[in-house]
Amino acid sequence: MVTDKIKRKAAANPEKPPLYSEGLYPNPKKLIAQDTIDINKLKGLVGKSILSIDQFDKDMVLEICKFAALLETTTIAESHPLDGKIIITAFFEPSTRTRLSFESAVLRLDGKIISIPEGQATGVAKGESLSDIGEMFNAYGDLVVVRHTETTAVDELLHNLRLPLINAGNGSGEHPTQAMADWFAILKWKPRLKQDVIAPEDRIHLGILGTPGSMRAVNSFLRLSLLFKAGIRRISIVSDLADPLGPELEESLNRSGIRYDITNDINTVLSDMDVVYMNSIAFLGDSYKTLDSRFKLDAGSNLKEDAVVLHPLARLDELDPTLDGTHHNLYFTQAHGAVFIRQALLISVLNRFDRIPPATPGIVKS
Amino acid sequence: MVTDKIKRKAAANPEKPPLYSEGLYPNPKKLIAQDTIDINKLKGLVGKSILSIDQFDKDMVLEICKFAALLETTTIAESHPLDGKIIITAFFEPSTRTRLSFESAVLRLDGKIISIPEGQATGVAKGESLSDIGEMFNAYGDLVVVRHTETTAVDELLHNLRLPLINAGNGSGEHPTQAMADWFAILKWKPRLKQDVIAPEDRIHLGILGTPGSMRAVNSFLRLSLLFKAGIRRISIVSDLADPLGPELEESLNRSGIRYDITNDINTVLSDMDVVYMNSIAFLGDSYKTLDSRFKLDAGSNLKEDAVVLHPLARLDELDPTLDGTHHNLYFTQAHGAVFIRQALLISVLNRFDRIPPATPGIVKS
Amino acid sequence: MVTDKIKRKAAANPEKPPLYSEGLYPNPKKLIAQDTIDINKLKGLVGKSILSIDQFDKDMVLEICKFAALLETTTIAESHPLDGKIIITAFFEPSTRTRLSFESAVLRLDGKIISIPEGQATGVAKGESLSDIGEMFNAYGDLVVVRHTETTAVDELLHNLRLPLINAGNGSGEHPTQAMADWFAILKWKPRLKQDVIAPEDRIHLGILGTPGSMRAVNSFLRLSLLFKAGIRRISIVSDLADPLGPELEESLNRSGIRYDITNDINTVLSDMDVVYMNSIAFLGDSYKTLDSRFKLDAGSNLKEDAVVLHPLARLDELDPTLDGTHHNLYFTQAHGAVFIRQALLISVLNRFDRIPPATPGIVKS
Repeated sequence: MVTDKIKRKAAANPEKPPLYSEGLYPNPKKLIAQDTIDINKLKGLVGKSILSIDQFDKDMVLEICKFAALLETTTIAESHPLDGKIIITAFFEPSTRTRLSFESAVLRLDGKIISIPEGQATGVAKGESLSDIGEMFNAYGDLVVVRHTETTAVDELLHNLRLPLINAGNGSGEHPTQAMADWFAILKWKPRLKQDVIAPEDRIHLGILGTPGSMRAVNSFLRLSLLFKAGIRRISIVSDLADPLGPELEESLNRSGIRYDITNDINTVLSDMDVVYMNSIAFLGDSYKTLDSRFKLDAGSNLKEDAVVLHPLARLDELDPTLDGTHHNLYFTQAHGAVFIRQALLISVLNRFDRIPPATPGIVKS
Repeated sequence: MVTDKIKRKAAANPEKPPLYSEGLYPNPKKLIAQDTIDINKLKGLVGKSILSIDQFDKDMVLEICKFAALLETTTIAESHPLDGKIIITAFFEPSTRTRLSFESAVLRLDGKIISIPEGQATGVAKGESLSDIGEMFNAYGDLVVVRHTETTAVDELLHNLRLPLINAGNGSGEHPTQAMADWFAILKWKPRLKQDVIAPEDRIHLGILGTPGSMRAVNSFLRLSLLFKAGIRRISIVSDLADPLGPELEESLNRSGIRYDITNDINTVLSDMDVVYMNSIAFLGDSYKTLDSRFKLDAGSNLKEDAVVLHPLARLDELDPTLDGTHHNLYFTQAHGAVFIRQALLISVLNRFDRIPPATPGIVKS
Repeated sequence: MVTDKIKRKAAANPEKPPLYSEGLYPNPKKLIAQDTIDINKLKGLVGKSILSIDQFDKDMVLEICKFAALLETTTIAESHPLDGKIIITAFFEPSTRTRLSFESAVLRLDGKIISIPEGQATGVAKGESLSDIGEMFNAYGDLVVVRHTETTAVDELLHNLRLPLINAGNGSGEHPTQAMADWFAILKWKPRLKQDVIAPEDRIHLGILGTPGSMRAVNSFLRLSLLFKAGIRRISIVSDLADPLGPELEESLNRSGIRYDITNDINTVLSDMDVVYMNSIAFLGDSYKTLDSRFKLDAGSNLKEDAVVLHPLARLDELDPTLDGTHHNLYFTQAHGAVFIRQALLISVLNRFDRIPPATPGIVKS
């Protein structure tokens, strides 16, 4: 049996345009309009590992985001930018979404992939040290993307590794490329946040649902947000924990001069927020902790008229699909953009700027 | 230890010709001899999902089969027809043969693959809705091939999906590309079945072992057979069930005007059949039901002199290897041809006709 | 949290040169200096399966090793030597290292991969015969790399297979490409072992830790070593078993005229060995047997000044990382070289010599 719905779909199924061309989602071109991309700045990433947000300054993040916007709006697959390069995706903590986001980025650029979707379950790592695995990677590829349950795993892999490494999440440490994807979405939504001087009425109230001190993506997002402090008037951290920051992040926040508050009741702050950053799932050892049931959003939530919601997905019931068709939905933009952020990083680290079509507008080459 | 047999093989192993060049198997060229392929007809598939046999008319199936025959007998890999395209193979019900058949088709055309061999077991689908997974696929690829245990799964995926989808088997629903591969084999064997008017002595008796009403591949095969009714003089359905058709298929059969009968004793009809279609394994929820032991074929079975046997493989003992070296064996042809049917569909849906070498004989371009 | 070590690494991470350019590891160029590669000899492999060391003579192994050395020191990825070819890696006994070594070789040459990492666990082989699986492979690819727990599995696959097959380990049988990788490392370390006449003082004492009669990699290594008998003054086999050879290997050793001895006490022979070949892990049915604890090497072991150690990795504690930074470490060279041995074999079997850049020095084409 095939349902009637299927038959109608099959009859009607048109070639669909990119997400942003339908008007609901911000167009990446807004981010690079009347602007250029400084390849010389990006060349600072050549051969480098991407481990922590602390490696980056605001200008570098901006160039990465603008480069990603260019890649999102340009047909570049036929230039085969990563021709001949092998990227190893080694996920010692499985994550289908993140792994496939990286792999899609690699494939779109014509790179090759050696995929290790379950590093802990396969022969790799059965009693073998991470430094030996790093040495093996040297023989097999040109760049390694790693996720691991242990915060220290990246250190151990780097011991023998001779290739650049992109940290795709290390224990309770960092997840820098996710944070860049998050800010890529925010900058598409409000490009004036690029600027160094921003009028008070344009500054945003950032709401963070989660614990930056123990959740790596929230940690990286908060660290990256501090680089854009000129555009932030207030940060609210919504968490059930008494101390969701820890001393290092607390000091960084204090040093930034941004007003911030911590609460366990989202209802006291939600209606003032411009950006609501959700990250529902915390990996705690072998299990997942979901957000308290008070932290749920749907089309009936008391959101500001033009507020936007970020969520790395996958979602359970904390983020209701009734928001999908509204202007609050920035999370689809965020997921789509992540693929292009990763493309920008791969081209930069592997120094394949010369494979970008020469006529690409907005590129300033060295 | 290496056996003596291995050593002899290693010494003798020649470069082997294609399956059909040995004479035992029908040559695909017979299907396109003195004929042309109408690209304009095939362009009706551009951007479309392939969900059900009901989408197709006989002419479209013929063009697909002739295009597949051309691809099977032409060296096309060096034209890189799917260069830059990413195909996602998402198998929520594992099937190594079908998945690899699609993936081989993609790779031969230089497309890229994001493979999800066990959708139910990986992070994908752990509590995540199929419509969210469809939205994720939008960001990662250009076309999705899906198999799922649930008949309604394709509907749910299509909710947010902006890419064309090829249904590789949905629950007890359909499996349209398998049915096309089945008829591709039949048409290679007897090309005159292409015609709209067929002499009575050339019409075939089609034997179907299985239950079209609940087995998706048998369902799609029967629906597709009805498009070729001009060449069918009789259909026998061999099944242990009292009602193997269900009301919708029964009505379609009645409307076709083809003589048909239902029996649970293959011995009463086998010796008259021209095509014996086997499909031994029915997926029933989480388990497999094998055919009754009476339904077994071997070289000693009472087959007509020039009858052929179809079987989608893998087989257990219902189809004996003693038939492999006989002219009754059309199932190897069927399995080989499936890769080219899928190539024809991929090129058509993704509109890469322009990548076919211009000098390819038999192609009529628009 | 990101550790301070990570931050320092990120700051400093330079583009790393190939392994051998640091001086600790032998440069592959030593193996082809003032020498040529005879493509005509290598063409003897076109279309052939690689099943056993017994197929090869010393000259063929030398040409393969020299070709591998050329590939290791030449940028060849941009020539796309395996463009359009599909290689199936079918591992019915999982082995991440060996599989990824083959897959890296394929990808570096721009071949495509159909990967079956766990043949026993997937749909393939669930009650299906190996000869049917071989027939399926015919439809899907151009060459098959197979590992299997059963020694006879390769025979069964070859029954219907029309493609060349590379044996990547069959039960207690052979593992010929590993043995070539082992000797590739030895020849890089001491290129004069290529010669047919070697001065007594240049001949080596080969120590083999393991049981050649039941461990496939050790079996293939010993068989291959006998081809280089002109350079071997003594072979010591260190094993706990009373008869680690079996009658066939014992006869081969006797026929070679090489002095050999069998001992269970490594301390009586270690200080005289020039090459120490370790292979710690024996696959015995479903379990692994580790070497006796006496067979351990570290930087304090009584090794000869210029002795080298081979180990196929992964290692547990039988080979201590304190040896990694010493000149005794030939095992990193060995693992790196394996990828290029496999590249040389793939290009040869698939006859893609014409895709090698014409100006490549040292190549003698037909």
